[in-house]
Amino acid sequence: MSVPTIESANELPDALKRLYAPVANELLEVERRLRQEMRSEHPYVDELVRYGVMLGGKRLRPTLLLLAAKATGELTPKHYVLSAVVEMVHTATLVHDDVLDEAVTRRRLATVNSRWDNEASVLLGDFLFSHAFYLASTLETTFACLTIGRATNVVCEGELRQKGSRGDFLLSEQEYLEIIDGKTAELCDCACRLGAHYAGASHPAVEAMARYGRNLGMAFQIADDLLDIVGSESLVGKSLGTDLEKQKPTLPIIRLLQQAHGDAHKQILEILESDAPNKGEQLAPWLERYDAIAYARGKARHYSQAALRELSDFAESPALDTLRRLTDFVIQRSM
Amino acid sequence: MSVPTIESANELPDALKRLYAPVANELLEVERRLRQEMRSEHPYVDELVRYGVMLGGKRLRPTLLLLAAKATGELTPKHYVLSAVVEMVHTATLVHDDVLDEAVTRRRLATVNSRWDNEASVLLGDFLFSHAFYLASTLETTFACLTIGRATNVVCEGELRQKGSRGDFLLSEQEYLEIIDGKTAELCDCACRLGAHYAGASHPAVEAMARYGRNLGMAFQIADDLLDIVGSESLVGKSLGTDLEKQKPTLPIIRLLQQAHGDAHKQILEILESDAPNKGEQLAPWLERYDAIAYARGKARHYSQAALRELSDFAESPALDTLRRLTDFVIQRSM
Repeated sequence: MSVPTIESANELPDALKRLYAPVANELLEVERRLRQEMRSEHPYVDELVRYGVMLGGKRLRPTLLLLAAKATGELTPKHYVLSAVVEMVHTATLVHDDVLDEAVTRRRLATVNSRWDNEASVLLGDFLFSHAFYLASTLETTFACLTIGRATNVVCEGELRQKGSRGDFLLSEQEYLEIIDGKTAELCDCACRLGAHYAGASHPAVEAMARYGRNLGMAFQIADDLLDIVGSESLVGKSLGTDLEKQKPTLPIIRLLQQAHGDAHKQILEILESDAPNKGEQLAPWLERYDAIAYARGKARHYSQAALRELSDFAESPALDTLRRLTDFVIQRSM
Repeated sequence: MSVPTIESANELPDALKRLYAPVANELLEVERRLRQEMRSEHPYVDELVRYGVMLGGKRLRPTLLLLAAKATGELTPKHYVLSAVVEMVHTATLVHDDVLDEAVTRRRLATVNSRWDNEASVLLGDFLFSHAFYLASTLETTFACLTIGRATNVVCEGELRQKGSRGDFLLSEQEYLEIIDGKTAELCDCACRLGAHYAGASHPAVEAMARYGRNLGMAFQIADDLLDIVGSESLVGKSLGTDLEKQKPTLPIIRLLQQAHGDAHKQILEILESDAPNKGEQLAPWLERYDAIAYARGKARHYSQAALRELSDFAESPALDTLRRLTDFVIQRSM
């Protein structure tokens, strides 16, 4: 695999640039701040943390925060700080996830733990977390700290529950949904909530934006989990199949086990619990037979549409239009 | 090695109980809060985070915070919250350190990564970090968040620099001191600063307490690094020799390399860079010949005395007396 330079990897794809157009300039400012904050006077630390900034990829959370602000009120300097904060928190969880998943590529870049090692990943994630909290506490009130602290807590608990569910193929759909609600949807809720709140939106408008973010996050995570099974590494730009390898039960698998009975159920479990390197191939006919991929796609679409509905009471604007189009975008690669 | 139960491991040794007497009741309240905060309704998460609370051991940072408060003014309910916060931050760094060090015992308990695995350690540390920040943001102002966020940042940078210095036996004494100033002394400064600030102490009193904490932290870390070379596992209660194994240059080693020249220098470097399991034994005669252990002990004592001097302007009280005795206590096991 050819590894792009840090600079080229961090360029957003053209499709995203077009989609994010209403906050293009604001995102450049956020990017500038991220680069400015993630520095150190010590060369080893500096190289590592600068690399870390590049791993976030899609910049979905700062984009949500900025769009929610523009769609509901006035953008303020605080929005730039908070956009950098949510992206740092997200990147911290990614970097630590990569330790957990032993993934070797992320956004077409070598992950920190493959380029450096697990230790560097752990410390870089901690640096990102603590820097995010520090930045949040530079605002006047504790509102942002409280909102971000609570969200990060929920994210960590979601990650821990997911880890506890490894190899637990009795996990119910409900439990799976709760887990991704914690580990992914919570921070999207938080980003939209902060964006709208600091733009001076009314309480109902803040809550609607937060629900939009939460549903969008659910749709995104279900789609992302689907990609791990049906995606192509060269298109997606990160290591795939790691969920199966790590025995993480995701929606298609949960659905499959719920639908299959007797011998079929037994055979599927045997594949899932084996060490075979090609579990995806072995599962493909079963997933097909029980329509499990289609079922998971339907769920992703369900949340995507729920997100869309939350936007119906807002005044038309380019920012609102992008929020609307994002509901399609987050599930589109998995459809 | 016999592994005590969670409950018995968490009992402070009698010597510490006597030393901490002026804040004994307050520490019980902090313990209660830690146990109350570190819970989850999900059994897997709950077991892990409850175990995590037990790993902090000496409770040095909350004790410093409470003593600094009592020695300079009035204890308030905020002090309990902040004591829990600094202990959680400290425990988070311990748990992540154990991933880095691949240590198997900590405070006579199995470390999280040996009892569970590295993934659990990473997530537990994140949970502790984020819960600490969340708790700090429940206070009215951003002062605590800002102070803790800044300190945690410095701690992470110190840890990263230390990691960058692995195997770098050209590390100077100055660089070593800067690293431990970040990774250890900073949080002791922070604990004392918060204690005095929230007790209503004057600005000079807050700064003197903070300097006390910083010097105490330096003394403690030099002594702790010494123990890794000269200590006995059964007395110290944690895995030793890991610094040598991981090629972490600590003060006795830095001193040794600075003093030895020519052939001696070459032979010492060969031992340090080898994979031998008994590097400590091989180094012992060299450390003896160049008086390197005594030199490091002298440095620990230097910082311990600097800490003591910061206390000279405070009014006598049982809390002050304990702060004073702590300057001896933190270096005593290594002398």
